[in-house]
Amino acid sequence: MPVTADPEFWPRPAREQKSADLRIDNARIVNVFSGEIMEAPLCAAKGRILGFSRLEAKQVVDAGGGFLLPGLIDAHTHIESSLLCPARFAEAVLPRGVTTVLADPHEIANVAGLAGLRYMLEATDGLPLNVLFMLSSCVPALPLEDSGAVLKAEDLAFLMSHPRIAGLGEMMNTAGVLSGDAEVLAKIRLALDCGKRVDGHSPGLTGSALDAYIAAGISTDHECVSAEEFQERVRRGMYILLREGSASRDLLRLLPGVTQANARRCLFCTDDRHPADILDIGHIDNHLRLAVAAGLDPVTAVRMATLNAAECYGLERIGGLAPGWRADMVLVNDLREFRASSVWAGGQLVAERGRMLEDLPHRAADDMRGTVRLAPLPDRPFALRLPSGKARVIRPFPHSLITGHEILPVRVDGQGFFDFALNPGLLKIAVLERHHASGKMSVGLLDKIYGLRGGAIATSVAHDSHNLVVAGDNDADMQQAAEAVARLGGGVVMTAGGKILAELPLPVAGLMSELPAAQVAEKLRGLLRLAREHYHIWDQADAFMTLSFLALPVIPHLKITARGLFDVDAGRFVEVAVP
Amino acid sequence: MPVTADPEFWPRPAREQKSADLRIDNARIVNVFSGEIMEAPLCAAKGRILGFSRLEAKQVVDAGGGFLLPGLIDAHTHIESSLLCPARFAEAVLPRGVTTVLADPHEIANVAGLAGLRYMLEATDGLPLNVLFMLSSCVPALPLEDSGAVLKAEDLAFLMSHPRIAGLGEMMNTAGVLSGDAEVLAKIRLALDCGKRVDGHSPGLTGSALDAYIAAGISTDHECVSAEEFQERVRRGMYILLREGSASRDLLRLLPGVTQANARRCLFCTDDRHPADILDIGHIDNHLRLAVAAGLDPVTAVRMATLNAAECYGLERIGGLAPGWRADMVLVNDLREFRASSVWAGGQLVAERGRMLEDLPHRAADDMRGTVRLAPLPDRPFALRLPSGKARVIRPFPHSLITGHEILPVRVDGQGFFDFALNPGLLKIAVLERHHASGKMSVGLLDKIYGLRGGAIATSVAHDSHNLVVAGDNDADMQQAAEAVARLGGGVVMTAGGKILAELPLPVAGLMSELPAAQVAEKLRGLLRLAREHYHIWDQADAFMTLSFLALPVIPHLKITARGLFDVDAGRFVEVAVP
Repeated sequence: MPVTADPEFWPRPAREQKSADLRIDNARIVNVFSGEIMEAPLCAAKGRILGFSRLEAKQVVDAGGGFLLPGLIDAHTHIESSLLCPARFAEAVLPRGVTTVLADPHEIANVAGLAGLRYMLEATDGLPLNVLFMLSSCVPALPLEDSGAVLKAEDLAFLMSHPRIAGLGEMMNTAGVLSGDAEVLAKIRLALDCGKRVDGHSPGLTGSALDAYIAAGISTDHECVSAEEFQERVRRGMYILLREGSASRDLLRLLPGVTQANARRCLFCTDDRHPADILDIGHIDNHLRLAVAAGLDPVTAVRMATLNAAECYGLERIGGLAPGWRADMVLVNDLREFRASSVWAGGQLVAERGRMLEDLPHRAADDMRGTVRLAPLPDRPFALRLPSGKARVIRPFPHSLITGHEILPVRVDGQGFFDFALNPGLLKIAVLERHHASGKMSVGLLDKIYGLRGGAIATSVAHDSHNLVVAGDNDADMQQAAEAVARLGGGVVMTAGGKILAELPLPVAGLMSELPAAQVAEKLRGLLRLAREHYHIWDQADAFMTLSFLALPVIPHLKITARGLFDVDAGRFVEVAVP
Repeated sequence: MPVTADPEFWPRPAREQKSADLRIDNARIVNVFSGEIMEAPLCAAKGRILGFSRLEAKQVVDAGGGFLLPGLIDAHTHIESSLLCPARFAEAVLPRGVTTVLADPHEIANVAGLAGLRYMLEATDGLPLNVLFMLSSCVPALPLEDSGAVLKAEDLAFLMSHPRIAGLGEMMNTAGVLSGDAEVLAKIRLALDCGKRVDGHSPGLTGSALDAYIAAGISTDHECVSAEEFQERVRRGMYILLREGSASRDLLRLLPGVTQANARRCLFCTDDRHPADILDIGHIDNHLRLAVAAGLDPVTAVRMATLNAAECYGLERIGGLAPGWRADMVLVNDLREFRASSVWAGGQLVAERGRMLEDLPHRAADDMRGTVRLAPLPDRPFALRLPSGKARVIRPFPHSLITGHEILPVRVDGQGFFDFALNPGLLKIAVLERHHASGKMSVGLLDKIYGLRGGAIATSVAHDSHNLVVAGDNDADMQQAAEAVARLGGGVVMTAGGKILAELPLPVAGLMSELPAAQVAEKLRGLLRLAREHYHIWDQADAFMTLSFLALPVIPHLKITARGLFDVDAGRFVEVAVP
């Protein structure tokens, strides 16, 4: 099946192509096909490129010798990680020259299942940004998760042929692939039968296990963290996505592996990028800056940001500037800074000098509100009985999703309950099931290295099931924060001394805001400032992300879900109390 | 829709990949993904590559340091031009390392329409050679042709989604594309709607006309004859097929246009290659030899012969050596001669040292026999009355499909009929409608520069309608040759002095033989020798091809069809006699 953002493409007779809607003169066109810088007028009409003859045009733009690139492509991203609903996300990335993204709606799928996927399709329909989706392959991440929804192969079947579905999203269930799990293979086969891609996710996999994983039909990876991993995968026919996100910054580590000979198999992606980062340092334009500054040939870099991604995912008539192709174009002043002075999407000028010319209409997300369904909290919800005086403790590490699994002595009160006053080095962390108001919840201990002092933080963004996570150094603030998040219908809340210090409402599926990127980014910066100043959290940048990933039971070593502490290495739940 | 030669691909669990059917040791693997020469064992099982670990294997082959390439791909060919039925064609090209061809069944489609396409699909089903088809876009070449069949968009519709149909074949109707002919655009849209390619055919087209042609959705061209044409098309996003056929040899003319930067958009094709050429000088392996001898980097050349073609046509899991990909492989001793010492197709060793290990089973072509339906010839069928004593004469040129349009004085007999004895410089040429026994036929004059002396040649291979063409220097030999071709059910017959000198039966649709390539090549060599020795035809190599193209009314200037002389420039039929 064709993957396309413009199903209404229809070849037009030459006589209708004698005059143009738009002609761009004096541009140095980066020709991603020939690898040359080409000097010619570019004409477009009805949203598509007509060609390179000097036709009459309704509007003529003088590019002043600037460089004209095809619109940039983010080959793998989670829109939800921007905390922005799709239209607001589009407003944030279009001014950076990004006109196409391949999005895995993995987070909202865990909350709302097919309805979430449908919302994302509808909310991106007709946007100037081409949004193509990879159907989420692992919802939930583990069978024993309390996610909002479960997606089976038969659920994905009727969506896979959609022209804006480009394939199957990152296959994290490596074990399932290697063991030949029927459900996993059925999802892969579904994409292959439609002639579409299956994205990989194979950190650390090597040798014959990697061979078997690839042989299953998986053809990309965005989790390489070394030039060696990169090369082993390129040599086995995988396309490699060089990731530069808010947390995982891999681009410069991988770049030494890129050669003129293998660059055609290399793409760029952000994976997860916060709104503040998008506004402050950019999006795929940032990849171009970093790569070229590190010595990569600029035209090669532009190909990685455009044609290569389109080829990898079989995207039709985008990713290059050619007759009949979609007129997605970025004008930049040089090939070092890649500052987008003008951005055209489907032939329409949408952004100038980093600003949208107008806000985008966005689909109301009413059906995605009210997804935080929390059962009334019991009396003393966070009380933790530890008769043995010994307990398991989750130890977070800076800039990492991996946690330590500690067993420490703890001091308890007369009734054998954990007492904050007697354990200055420890915090409590709780996960509350929030999709079905089942009342399932668990309480555990968190090493104070996280830094939280004098309050609590609660968030409904908690990968991948997005239950409600709350951490604090006293039960009252924890309860107030948790209840406040529920009241908001999702978001992040910081409390201290019985007061709400700050909140970031994320009412769309408890993950996204409908506010403009600038406002969300400003709120986020405020929360991070508070985390630093009030809570003294060692790594402000990760203050919330660290919390969000403490509930993800597929990354070692000790995590917590609504069902209790999970020993990832042993693959089983464990008690907090150690005999 | 996926384009694939192996619809039964299904990912298998790793445990089934612990042991291999085949392991190749000591090979230098040409890695078309990374552009490197890689030293590793290669394992395959169930027809696919498992990977590059040293697994246990039923059979271990020592490559002795030879170079292992992916099976070669011919990106555009007409199997009928080999005069061989598909299985025999496969036996001829597989030993050359060619494991995949994209074939346009244009010739048989003009004879037998959909039944012809069905025959080609069935006759290639299950062959070790991957045969993918481009649906013929221009049947007949012109509306006023007497072809055996007409193919409309609705005829092609139900075939386009077939997994072995890779798109729409060479769109020769440039005028139809540019004028927006509804039927032409419908055929193009049909392929695009399935996410498949449309092959181009745009000799001489340039500037805004070329832009409009490409904008219609046409994305390849194999008709470039200069580096300039090549570059103009690459810059507009076209894939360029470097052609090296029996008649059109363009490879070395185009090679100067190939750069490291644009090579990924370059492919190899033969278009039309005689069986003697395939056996004597090779197939796509010949392209590799020529290109590398001319200075092209060998790995780049191999990519053009493999991965680039697979990418261009969206062929899945062929064109490279990677886990899960089809085990189509060629072992060559060096990267200069590219002599295939072993060829594996789908994991099976099919050829060694230039020979098939066994003949291929071939589907009986009974339903494609008896397609030469000639009405009984009238009395004096070739009598030509020229009262005015002035006539139009077709003048062939060496090594060209273009003809001259001459007007010469002719001497006639008492009744005003053309008389050979009085016109030593002229031959007769006749075209007889042979599909529907309609009795339509026309007689014209051919400049003796063609060289034929003392007999006649008749053939049922006559592009594109494949009516019966006969030329000679006396009516009796012409009639005997024509009737002999009809009796054979198609083929080539040479007569002289009332005797049949030689014949090459082509009973399959009047175009192909079911004999092995070596026998057909030997017969063809014999005919060419006779043409040289007995008829003194100036260009033996083109003796028959020249004749075959004198009936193609889409190439200037003066041609002849069953309906009469056709003035290609004026686009109308003209009388032989000039007032």
